[in-house]
Amino acid sequence: MNSSTSLEPVDSFDYVIFGATGDLTMRKLLPALYRRFAEGQVPADSRIVGTARSPLDDEGYRERARQALHEHVRADELIDATVNRFLRMVHYVSLNGAESTGNWEGLKSLLVSNAAADRVRVFYLATAPDLYGDIARNVAEKGLRSESSRIVLEKPIGTDLETARKVNEGVGRYFPEGSIFRIDHYLGKEAVQNIIALRFANPMLERMWDRDSIEYVQITAAETVGLEGRGGYYDGSGALRDMIQNHLLQVLTVVAMERPVSLDADALRDEKVRVLKSLKPLDRDNLRANVARGQYVQGTAGGKPVPAYREELPGETPSNTETFVALKAEIDNARWRGVPFYLRSGKRMPEKLTEVVVQFRAGEPGLFGEARPGSRLVIRVQPNESVTLPLFVKHPGDSFGLDEVDALSRLGEPGRIRYRDSYEGLMLDAVKGSPALFVRKDETEAAWQWVTPILEGWREDENGPDTYEAGTWGPDSARELLRQAGHQWVEDIAA
Amino acid sequence: MNSSTSLEPVDSFDYVIFGATGDLTMRKLLPALYRRFAEGQVPADSRIVGTARSPLDDEGYRERARQALHEHVRADELIDATVNRFLRMVHYVSLNGAESTGNWEGLKSLLVSNAAADRVRVFYLATAPDLYGDIARNVAEKGLRSESSRIVLEKPIGTDLETARKVNEGVGRYFPEGSIFRIDHYLGKEAVQNIIALRFANPMLERMWDRDSIEYVQITAAETVGLEGRGGYYDGSGALRDMIQNHLLQVLTVVAMERPVSLDADALRDEKVRVLKSLKPLDRDNLRANVARGQYVQGTAGGKPVPAYREELPGETPSNTETFVALKAEIDNARWRGVPFYLRSGKRMPEKLTEVVVQFRAGEPGLFGEARPGSRLVIRVQPNESVTLPLFVKHPGDSFGLDEVDALSRLGEPGRIRYRDSYEGLMLDAVKGSPALFVRKDETEAAWQWVTPILEGWREDENGPDTYEAGTWGPDSARELLRQAGHQWVEDIAA
Repeated sequence: MNSSTSLEPVDSFDYVIFGATGDLTMRKLLPALYRRFAEGQVPADSRIVGTARSPLDDEGYRERARQALHEHVRADELIDATVNRFLRMVHYVSLNGAESTGNWEGLKSLLVSNAAADRVRVFYLATAPDLYGDIARNVAEKGLRSESSRIVLEKPIGTDLETARKVNEGVGRYFPEGSIFRIDHYLGKEAVQNIIALRFANPMLERMWDRDSIEYVQITAAETVGLEGRGGYYDGSGALRDMIQNHLLQVLTVVAMERPVSLDADALRDEKVRVLKSLKPLDRDNLRANVARGQYVQGTAGGKPVPAYREELPGETPSNTETFVALKAEIDNARWRGVPFYLRSGKRMPEKLTEVVVQFRAGEPGLFGEARPGSRLVIRVQPNESVTLPLFVKHPGDSFGLDEVDALSRLGEPGRIRYRDSYEGLMLDAVKGSPALFVRKDETEAAWQWVTPILEGWREDENGPDTYEAGTWGPDSARELLRQAGHQWVEDIAA
Repeated sequence: MNSSTSLEPVDSFDYVIFGATGDLTMRKLLPALYRRFAEGQVPADSRIVGTARSPLDDEGYRERARQALHEHVRADELIDATVNRFLRMVHYVSLNGAESTGNWEGLKSLLVSNAAADRVRVFYLATAPDLYGDIARNVAEKGLRSESSRIVLEKPIGTDLETARKVNEGVGRYFPEGSIFRIDHYLGKEAVQNIIALRFANPMLERMWDRDSIEYVQITAAETVGLEGRGGYYDGSGALRDMIQNHLLQVLTVVAMERPVSLDADALRDEKVRVLKSLKPLDRDNLRANVARGQYVQGTAGGKPVPAYREELPGETPSNTETFVALKAEIDNARWRGVPFYLRSGKRMPEKLTEVVVQFRAGEPGLFGEARPGSRLVIRVQPNESVTLPLFVKHPGDSFGLDEVDALSRLGEPGRIRYRDSYEGLMLDAVKGSPALFVRKDETEAAWQWVTPILEGWREDENGPDTYEAGTWGPDSARELLRQAGHQWVEDIAA
């Protein structure tokens, strides 16, 4: 229907990145801005101002940025002249955003120079989350806010309900909620946004989208990698905080929400919050029946032996941090009551894979002989975004047997549109002031409210996580979680 | 589910074909039996006995049969040794089935010889239909019936309700209904049988299969050819008798029937009859509002100029025979009341095409901007059997537009199974005594009951058919039929 790709140029802007020498900036943020610049969406007099502690000048930082683009942008998208023009927009100011010392004056004079004073100014916080409050305060006290400022916060927002509230309060003291953009890059993924289109633009699916037709939902985000040197951060976090509290619960809200009044930011987020608030609480009493946690021990990845999680930690410290979580969530409302939403995420799984599996109930039995299971709608988020909708058709030949065929629609089909990284759209949405795909304060807190009792329950459980071999789908307890309801994880059904 | 192709060998049988030198036998019947023989389903001591007036002996007929196979079976399915073994089963007896003279004794001694007396004996009537009664009588009076005889009748069964009853009575006097196999080769088509699987094995579709969700249905059988030398027969028949009364009404019953109690022959046919009996009667008063008829005049086919229908007739006689019919049928029951079923068939159309289009109602408007039409399920019967189920997905990019993508399932996919002609399964079903895909007496008569008033109305209408240019989709009146309801033929929507 709409064949525009919506890359109309935005107004000139200034993008200030805190944590500009960090991994996220180099891997994701600069490449995202470069791609949109190359497509003509970013006016050349916009500015991208990196800040970090390193004592670099513009040229020094530009060299790092150039290197980052060469590492993280596909060669066929890199054109020397375009890269050079892009880098001319890039500046650097050496300061620690959490401290009031440093070259704030330099940053200020850059931002308020000439005609740029009233343009959109985005502050992107790609630093450790416990600095967010301090950075927001400094930005405010140093006089960097303008009429149209926004502040973008990377995950995690806190480590439990209390700390999340603290972050929200700290930033909220200086920025109104309407200008705070909490990023969850899963919402930037086409395949996740597409769930909304699939659900509400196809009456065939809309009618099937409830407890009468759906037996259960599985949401999986699996990685094959282990710690990758993130030992310090990860060991203090674990899979529940790192993946479930944000990304997987966000996907769950999109799968489960009621039809929103409109696609406006608050209409969407109102519905998402309602889902989170309808989650049946988990606490120490029902924890073991609903949540499995695991930590990998020695095993294989890509055919090679790999060490246990604990061996990867600095100093091989003993640790109870979970590298795998599987849990059964229930949404206590009229649409979903009694339908399990199985969520799981883990490191050192057999495949890198993010997908939503919607298992429909079996149809009326009898007509075609043997009972058969209901079909499964599979929404593959990565790799190879796609939607697979199985249909039963007649087996060719004289008998009346059935075949299950996949009516597949690849979303990222070659030629349809170039691959977009989820950060691209989100970074530009912040410029445009479109918060629909960002997480509202009450969403974050509702998610933490549900997750925090699990963390507390675990703290009191001296057993620690179950173990699983690297290269497997997690501990047995994850399978047991489904077995009690007569269900199976999708890879066990397929096997 | 069922990966067998059901080609288990049947018991040895005798197949007696009346009209054995005719076009149908050569193009369809012998090739069908050959293919099943080549696949091992037909025991080599079975016999195929051709009868016709021509004074041929076994060898003479075998030569004709060999030629027919070479013309009508794909080269890669023809193996000399197999052809030779097949032809050893073929015999010929010279007689006119409608007359009691001729070599009936020869036929009888062949059939009752040795151990063959009590094997399944199929009499296939591929002659002019007005001979069916006489042939049945001769078969009976000459003592050719056995315990397990069946008689297969080709279309047309009569030319209106009265003559259809006469044929049914004439044959029914000598064969019980359970052994009469009225063939409609559309029911032998995989894509038509697949409608039953699609509808009743997929709850997603089953739920959408009614007046609440479906706006209308279109069933089209279009040919590009003109008369092809069938002038005499066709001019006495016309598109309504030749295509609508049988093939298209059969497809309609499969699309519209209620869920049958089972897939047994009578359970299926009970439901099909119920549909035919629920058709809202058409008569002279509502004829012009519901039926368009056309006859082609000069135009083009395959880019070349072609003559008018009347010019193709022997002697270029004036004729009011319709070469095109479009009509609006309504099924007056709870499921379908108010949903038009648009049927049409014509010669000299722009494409050769048989398909069913199910137009769903538009979804809830609003959420995605502009109103959009409902999607269309397309069941392509020929060429390239397929099912196309369109889905609305999100347009890739930052906006929230929609794209319509086709989730396509090709049924005849290369490698899935070899192409089967619809006659193959049907001819062997007659051997097996499986009448599910044949037309029961009351079905034929219910179809004629509905069609006959149209014929009568036309007879009284001195205007005759509207004209249409060869190579177009019929006269304007066919479009007008839909326009009054705000609908369009599928090629006009797509254009």
